[in-house]
Amino acid sequence: MKYNHIAAALAALAIGISASAQQALSSRAPVASPEINSDNTVTFRYRNAKAVKVLIQGDFLTSMSPVEMKEGQDGVWTYTSQPLEGELYLYDFIVDGERRNDPSNMYMSRDIATWTNFFTMSTRKDDKGWYYEVHDIPHGTLAKRWYDSPALGTVRRMSVYSPAGYEKSKGKYPVLYLLHGSGGDEDAWVDLGRTVQILDNLIAEGKAKPMIVVMPNGVYYNNAAPGYAVNMFQPTMSNSRSDSTKEIEDSFQDVISFVESNYRVATGRQNRAIAGLSMGSRQSCSISRSHPGTFSYIGMFSGAVPVNTPEEEAALAKQMDPKWAPKLYWIGVGSADGVKAHAIKIKEYCESKGYPVEYYESEGGHTWRNWRLYLTLFAQKIFK
Amino acid sequence: MKYNHIAAALAALAIGISASAQQALSSRAPVASPEINSDNTVTFRYRNAKAVKVLIQGDFLTSMSPVEMKEGQDGVWTYTSQPLEGELYLYDFIVDGERRNDPSNMYMSRDIATWTNFFTMSTRKDDKGWYYEVHDIPHGTLAKRWYDSPALGTVRRMSVYSPAGYEKSKGKYPVLYLLHGSGGDEDAWVDLGRTVQILDNLIAEGKAKPMIVVMPNGVYYNNAAPGYAVNMFQPTMSNSRSDSTKEIEDSFQDVISFVESNYRVATGRQNRAIAGLSMGSRQSCSISRSHPGTFSYIGMFSGAVPVNTPEEEAALAKQMDPKWAPKLYWIGVGSADGVKAHAIKIKEYCESKGYPVEYYESEGGHTWRNWRLYLTLFAQKIFK
Repeated sequence: MKYNHIAAALAALAIGISASAQQALSSRAPVASPEINSDNTVTFRYRNAKAVKVLIQGDFLTSMSPVEMKEGQDGVWTYTSQPLEGELYLYDFIVDGERRNDPSNMYMSRDIATWTNFFTMSTRKDDKGWYYEVHDIPHGTLAKRWYDSPALGTVRRMSVYSPAGYEKSKGKYPVLYLLHGSGGDEDAWVDLGRTVQILDNLIAEGKAKPMIVVMPNGVYYNNAAPGYAVNMFQPTMSNSRSDSTKEIEDSFQDVISFVESNYRVATGRQNRAIAGLSMGSRQSCSISRSHPGTFSYIGMFSGAVPVNTPEEEAALAKQMDPKWAPKLYWIGVGSADGVKAHAIKIKEYCESKGYPVEYYESEGGHTWRNWRLYLTLFAQKIFK
Repeated sequence: MKYNHIAAALAALAIGISASAQQALSSRAPVASPEINSDNTVTFRYRNAKAVKVLIQGDFLTSMSPVEMKEGQDGVWTYTSQPLEGELYLYDFIVDGERRNDPSNMYMSRDIATWTNFFTMSTRKDDKGWYYEVHDIPHGTLAKRWYDSPALGTVRRMSVYSPAGYEKSKGKYPVLYLLHGSGGDEDAWVDLGRTVQILDNLIAEGKAKPMIVVMPNGVYYNNAAPGYAVNMFQPTMSNSRSDSTKEIEDSFQDVISFVESNYRVATGRQNRAIAGLSMGSRQSCSISRSHPGTFSYIGMFSGAVPVNTPEEEAALAKQMDPKWAPKLYWIGVGSADGVKAHAIKIKEYCESKGYPVEYYESEGGHTWRNWRLYLTLFAQKIFK
């Protein structure tokens, strides 16, 4: 093979990966999937004439099990849902026993190491899906920044949302520190949590105060999300925690110091909130405890602080007994979440101490669907 | 089914999408893929005991056609490459005729509407792959910002890279405006082009001047990338161009005005460069022409300005005949690129006019592999 021939072949290959993929997928036109119908049902389509059995699984189904798609004469498998409420929905296909993404839907999000298709829909203004969608309103800025953490001896990456108008304003803004869960990173609240869309929409509607939202990376082992860290690591649930004496919580002052010296922030406890999901909820508790008088609003989303034994209750008391009372402990948990009992214990503990507490129970479990909702609710409670 | 039962089921489903997916995929431990071996060969693995034929295609193969993977006793299909040079490589599998991504590799990038697995490797400092990887050096900031475009009557989104130290400096920085191709958006140069990594590395090595890189959205129909625009549109190659009288080039002053009033930029033509790939190359030409004396460095990566007829040559002359000479026209093209003849014509035109021109021909074709390389080279030529 002559050199030019190889070069031409390589070029054709590299250009053609998507084209040839379409060919491999089907010799006919691609199918539209998902299609949101006028009655708010949603139709999913998948072309594969060779497949024997195709299932769909998704969080819009009322069935826990995947359901069968039906094959048409044209080799296109189809499933149409019940009418759905406004939401962000996740789904994928199971093709002859193997999970795969919908090749017709380029909207995908990564949760730890798994990519899943999603779509948003809203049936009216102000339904849940509406807050996760983009509207023709003023938009804030999202920045990916690196900060120095002397406590950990390294630089680390964070996502920072600043609201529309921040750059041209001379005003100072309150700050919400928003923490992810095990296996997550500084991209999680942005990509899975739709933080930018939720805040843009709440602020435009006058339902939340313009605020800065800081989303640091809460994983000790990695200083950045995959693709932005030095190694091409594979994230897992279990590589989030430190086995050393240094915990991510011990370095939180580095996060605050960076934010307060790099952004026009309003200081004082009344202008700082901290919230997190699951592991991040536990971190929110302990950081507020180790920074007494720093935060006035503490959000615990699907809080995973264990309170099953007297020792654990004592540990909770140690985390939750500041010398000062914040203006709000906000607790959100799903009725089917395994940590619901913990959340109730924390609520009861706050009540027994006379701390200001709000408890919100939603449907469902330990899911991003709930964490998006909790952020939407919590953001309306703070800095007011 | 009682309510609680449904809620519990939904919760289990939503939590379990990735867990059940792993189950569906295999009852055994996941396989590692890709694995970069000590001799710089790379091993790909894919577990699927039911598959009859599994191929791999990728831009590291010396063959244009996909090659067969070999099934082991354990149902794991394997392919090991030749020793590879440092690069960012793309690949996917074809399983019984259907293209699919590697379920073991969460590193994926989206090119228009197609997701493809990738990995980076470097065999020594300073090889190509090294520039696309993240190293333990100072990192710049990446911001996603919205700007007002009075010319188009809308707000639009852009990506802005600012180099390490920008925020704490009082200095002014030169600006590279970097344009994507058909079907792309403001995320393309960041995600596919590895712009942040390339600039961080070049600047840390002292090979490029610290500069701001502005990556606007050059698609008329959409004002932001998928997921950040009002509609959940499906990007295509063909929806990039305007069919109205307003072209994205006509609104470019809005981009410059926003950048120069929101960043500490050094003004004057010697501090402005503009470059783009394919469609963006054509836009770079015409924007430099319609903003005479604005840019001193013009980069044309796989330039697609047609020059096959006398009329097209006259049109080129009209684009390329400014009243002033820039310091550099830099032309990069692949030896197997279909637009190579155009690039040579442009080079010859510059030479005939006595314009300063550099022509760089690489292997391969109209691919991101080349555009990353051209950015790496062009960024070292400007602002010096």
